[in-house]
Amino acid sequence: MKKISILGSTGSVGTSALGFIKKFPNEFQVVGLAAGDRIDILAEQVRTFRPKVVATRTEAGLKQLLELTKDIEGVEYGFGVEAAESVASLSEVEIVLSAIVGSAGLRPTMAAAKAGKTIALANKESLVVAGALVTETVKRHGAKLLPVDSEHSAIYQCLVGSDMKHVHQLILTASGGPFFLKPEIDTSTVTRAQALKHPNWSMGEKITIDSATMMNKGFEAIEACWLFDIQPKQVGVVVHPQSIIHSMVDFVDGSIVAQLGVPDMAGPIAYALSYPDRLPDVMPRVNFAKLREFTFYEPDHRRFPSINHALQSFDMGPTFPAVLNGANEVTVRAFLDEKIAFTDIAGINEHVLGAYTSAAKTTLEDFIDADRWGRQEAEKMVTKKEKRT
Amino acid sequence: MKKISILGSTGSVGTSALGFIKKFPNEFQVVGLAAGDRIDILAEQVRTFRPKVVATRTEAGLKQLLELTKDIEGVEYGFGVEAAESVASLSEVEIVLSAIVGSAGLRPTMAAAKAGKTIALANKESLVVAGALVTETVKRHGAKLLPVDSEHSAIYQCLVGSDMKHVHQLILTASGGPFFLKPEIDTSTVTRAQALKHPNWSMGEKITIDSATMMNKGFEAIEACWLFDIQPKQVGVVVHPQSIIHSMVDFVDGSIVAQLGVPDMAGPIAYALSYPDRLPDVMPRVNFAKLREFTFYEPDHRRFPSINHALQSFDMGPTFPAVLNGANEVTVRAFLDEKIAFTDIAGINEHVLGAYTSAAKTTLEDFIDADRWGRQEAEKMVTKKEKRT
Repeated sequence: MKKISILGSTGSVGTSALGFIKKFPNEFQVVGLAAGDRIDILAEQVRTFRPKVVATRTEAGLKQLLELTKDIEGVEYGFGVEAAESVASLSEVEIVLSAIVGSAGLRPTMAAAKAGKTIALANKESLVVAGALVTETVKRHGAKLLPVDSEHSAIYQCLVGSDMKHVHQLILTASGGPFFLKPEIDTSTVTRAQALKHPNWSMGEKITIDSATMMNKGFEAIEACWLFDIQPKQVGVVVHPQSIIHSMVDFVDGSIVAQLGVPDMAGPIAYALSYPDRLPDVMPRVNFAKLREFTFYEPDHRRFPSINHALQSFDMGPTFPAVLNGANEVTVRAFLDEKIAFTDIAGINEHVLGAYTSAAKTTLEDFIDADRWGRQEAEKMVTKKEKRT
Repeated sequence: MKKISILGSTGSVGTSALGFIKKFPNEFQVVGLAAGDRIDILAEQVRTFRPKVVATRTEAGLKQLLELTKDIEGVEYGFGVEAAESVASLSEVEIVLSAIVGSAGLRPTMAAAKAGKTIALANKESLVVAGALVTETVKRHGAKLLPVDSEHSAIYQCLVGSDMKHVHQLILTASGGPFFLKPEIDTSTVTRAQALKHPNWSMGEKITIDSATMMNKGFEAIEACWLFDIQPKQVGVVVHPQSIIHSMVDFVDGSIVAQLGVPDMAGPIAYALSYPDRLPDVMPRVNFAKLREFTFYEPDHRRFPSINHALQSFDMGPTFPAVLNGANEVTVRAFLDEKIAFTDIAGINEHVLGAYTSAAKTTLEDFIDADRWGRQEAEKMVTKKEKRT
């Protein structure tokens, strides 16, 4: 029986993971839960899974939770970052699912790394913002990273039993988002509603916009560099609108191994939690005859420059991706708030990245500072744009 | 440096393998060669690779070879099955590439198995005709089978590092041959020339017709059952006319791992010879953007009943696939000689299979007898058909 802590238990990945765990009560035991504001859902989770330690983001949240679970005994409660860090580093826990969204997931993930845990990593920011630090910490403390992103999970599955020295390139597949296949659309005038219509995956607003700009693919390329210890030139992107091939490994001999599945996060979540085992029927099967066709395109870097911004940031230095991430958080928000145009997202991101000069050191604070700097600079530019319009 | 014997060195697989080996002189040393009638090519190979032992099929062939290589010293020569068996079991040889076409490859492959060699298996008949015996012999003598067929090599690559208990199904891809995508064609009236037009692979006549009837996919299903120790119900077939996905593994969780490559036998040959290593640039890379699309279809078992005949033969008993193979050799030959219709191939095969009653024992002779019985029965039916027309 694997003992698990879930950071971000009430989010999309967290609830999906608990749904999976519930189907296999003899395989997993939930020991710790940490969540943000959806206290009613958290209370239900506490009732169902009876964890030993539970953390809320705020004190107010904790009060509400205590009220909702006052009949349940034997649970230790806490709130704030330190409480989430304890949930991540509980001595009896073997696997930590790191699924807090955004930079807030960074510190608890670092705590899990320092505690030498196997980290099922859904929090993208841990690697995008502070990949150098996180991977170095993982190595130093004998921890382990298992990706939960569908692309990185695919690559991980393709690499099982293989040697990295045989890898020519990792090929990330991209759906292309709602605009790639429609060259007639002028992306400088698209609306919020148009950009939020993702063809395959049902996800949060932020990541859906990142998919439309293809910034998500850029961030995934950065994550791939850290996860698999490779350079940006070894990461390729192929647009595959059906999102059935989740990613591929191109080996030196010319042979390619790909992982496929229906677009369902249950697959990568289950794989990371049960690895090296595979549990039955965690997602519907691919029906090839019904799908009928897969198509492929080269990315259009002129219309969607974000992939290159990300790869450039990786080459510029360890804290640069953090700046890009910070800027992008602000620009996507501004686009969602209809303050800037869709094309301004990449435009402002690029400008902010170009204006940054590297941090001298690379402590966790330096990465968080770089992210913050990116946000502040982007805010300034958004305000300028707003004034103009 | 790996020491290699090549059985069938002048055939399509043999010459391709030697072409590959020549590019990596520090990786491989050719110690033994066995070939049939293309003595001029064999003489050149002796000159280039300086093997220690060489076998020809006939005494006449040997005389010709000795004449052509009389200036070369230090080579031991022989002819006939026993000479091929010695090439297969040379004590210093590590890998035996078994690439003699047809039932003639069976005995040398068995010799390699008994000598505990790693067998890179291109000879389909070894598993189709005598799979039970060959796999049992491999196991008993600590030998090892590495597939050279593109489909089985694909599955092997997809399974590296995985556990068979996690496999739901192996999915063989099929090009479908020249008629699958043309339902308007009445296969009972197609000509020899039409059937020989394979859309993707350039192969011999026999296997090209097997591809058109999809019998090759049936035989591959039988091979997959023996190679990966599974039952016919765990083998699926998907028609994929582009032949880029060479085959797939469908795992219990719903995740699929696939191997892809351009249709080039150099890939599977190189993989089997260099496994677990991969050597650089053995075939051209897949260009997804240029390929543009992959399509998929369910097999049409009414128009192409041969896959089911093969799977049924596997379930009927160990010597039944040998009967089907024997019958099919004869019916394909008769179609190529324009004695019977295309649809008679499967019709006669099915009839012969139905008329057979199992062999009592399963010695090598019993498998060869079953194959011979299938040939004889099929001959009789071909003669009847001929008389009628």
